[in-house]
Amino acid sequence: MEAFAADVPSAKGGGREKRMKNYKMVICYEGTRYDGWQKQTATDQTVQGKLEAVLSRMCGAPVEVQGSGRTDAGVHALAQVANAHMETELSAEQIRDYMNLYLPADISVEQVEPASDRFHSRLNARRKTYCYRIYTGETKPVFERNYVWTVKEPLSVARMQAAADFLLGEHDFKSFCANKRMKKSTVRRIDSLTVRRQGKEIRIAITGNGFLYNMVRIITGTLWEVGSGQREPEEMAKILAKRDRQAAGITAPAQGLTLMEVFY
Amino acid sequence: MEAFAADVPSAKGGGREKRMKNYKMVICYEGTRYDGWQKQTATDQTVQGKLEAVLSRMCGAPVEVQGSGRTDAGVHALAQVANAHMETELSAEQIRDYMNLYLPADISVEQVEPASDRFHSRLNARRKTYCYRIYTGETKPVFERNYVWTVKEPLSVARMQAAADFLLGEHDFKSFCANKRMKKSTVRRIDSLTVRRQGKEIRIAITGNGFLYNMVRIITGTLWEVGSGQREPEEMAKILAKRDRQAAGITAPAQGLTLMEVFY
Repeated sequence: MEAFAADVPSAKGGGREKRMKNYKMVICYEGTRYDGWQKQTATDQTVQGKLEAVLSRMCGAPVEVQGSGRTDAGVHALAQVANAHMETELSAEQIRDYMNLYLPADISVEQVEPASDRFHSRLNARRKTYCYRIYTGETKPVFERNYVWTVKEPLSVARMQAAADFLLGEHDFKSFCANKRMKKSTVRRIDSLTVRRQGKEIRIAITGNGFLYNMVRIITGTLWEVGSGQREPEEMAKILAKRDRQAAGITAPAQGLTLMEVFY
Repeated sequence: MEAFAADVPSAKGGGREKRMKNYKMVICYEGTRYDGWQKQTATDQTVQGKLEAVLSRMCGAPVEVQGSGRTDAGVHALAQVANAHMETELSAEQIRDYMNLYLPADISVEQVEPASDRFHSRLNARRKTYCYRIYTGETKPVFERNYVWTVKEPLSVARMQAAADFLLGEHDFKSFCANKRMKKSTVRRIDSLTVRRQGKEIRIAITGNGFLYNMVRIITGTLWEVGSGQREPEEMAKILAKRDRQAAGITAPAQGLTLMEVFY
C-alpha cells in the first residue's frame, strides 16, 4: 500500500543503492515450543528472537522486529503483524522466502510488503481478533491437541453468550488483567464477543481495540465458570465493577488461544 | 451392532460374571512420534504396543490387539479399526474412557463396541480409504506441518487425475509394492482415486479393497512426477504392465498419509 515511497531509488545513487526501509510482515506461528513472542535475555526460544536472528543474518546488521503485541508462551498466531526497518537489496518476496527458509518449521512468514517509514505494527493497530478454542468431545483431540483447551464439564453456550454480552463496549477491564501493578489505563473496548459451538468445539471469538495482559484467557476462564454452572451470567457486571482480578474467574490455558488478525 | 450376544450374562453365573469377549475399537492417532502401527521387539514406540500395554494393565492379563492393517512410521489414522478379545467387567464406554485416560495425547480411542466373536479387523475389512495431503502454498504449513508433504514444484491436478484414472479397477500392482519378496498375490482393486485442489493443498483420496506395502505412497510419488511434468499420464499403463517397482516413481514421505476409514 505504501509501495511508491519504498520503490523510489535513493536520490544519491542512480542504481539499486541500499537505504533503510520499513517492512510490514504477517507472521504465523505455533506457540507450543516458544516462551512467547517477546525477546528475553533468559531464553533464545522466543518468536521475536527467532525473527530478529534470521533478519540480522540476512542484513548483516542488527535488525529489530516490532510486533503488534506480545503473545504468551504457548499462544499461537495465524496472522501476527510485525514491522522492521532494514537495509537490503532483496525484494519483499525474496525477504519472505529467505525468512521461510531459515526460520523453524513452526514459524512462517505469510507476507512481506514495503511500508511507510511511519508504520508501527503496535502503535498503529486499531483492532485485534483472537479466537479461543475449547474442545468438548467425549474422546481426545489428537490432531488439534496443542490448539485447544480440553474441558470435560458440559458447557452451556447460551449461558456463556449471555455472560459475554455484558463485556461488549467500553469498560474498565481491570478485573480481567493479570498485571496487578498496571499503571496505565485498563479501559478497553470490545466490539464483538461470540461463543459458538462448532462440531466438537466451542469457539470464543473476540474483537477489540486492545487487550490487557491475559485478558482473553481470564475472560475465557470466567465464561467457562458460567458455562459449567459455577457462576451466573449476571455476575459479569459485578466483576467489571469490582476492578479486582480476584473477582474474575480462572485464567484459561495458553494453548487454546490464537491471535487471528490485526486491523490497521 | 452385536450388542445382544455381548450383553447376555454368562450361563454359569447369575451376575456380571466375566468371560472373554471381542471388542471392536476405532482408533485415531498422529503417527509422527511412532515407529508405525505394528508391535516390534526393538521399540516400545508403536501404536499397537501402546494399546496392548494399556489394555493388558486394564485386564490384568496379556491382551492382543489386531489392527485392520499396519501403518508405517509417521503415517496417521483418523479411524483405524482394531479388535481385541478381553475379559473385563467394564462396559464398552468405560473401556474407551480408561484407554483415553492412560494412552498418550497423540492416540485416542474414538469408539469401543462389543463385536461378534468371529469379528476380525483385518480379515473382515472389505475396503479402506486413505488420504494423501500435498501442501503447495507459497509459504509454510505451520499448523499442518506434520500432516502434509510440502512440494515446491507447480503441479497439474488435471495431469495427476488423468494418470490416476489408469489405476482404477483391478490390476496387478506389483510395480507399486515396496516389498520385493512379496510371495502372495499383488492384485488389488482400486474403487476410487481422486486428485483435488483444496485451498493450498492437493488431496489424493484413494479407496480400494486392499493396499500393498507402501502402495499409496508410491502411487502418490508417481502422480507427483506426472503432475510436475517429469512423466506423462499415459505411462501409468506401462508401469502397471512392467510389474517392477523400478518402473514406478518415488515413495512419497510418510507424514502426508492418513488412514481415513475402514469399511466392513
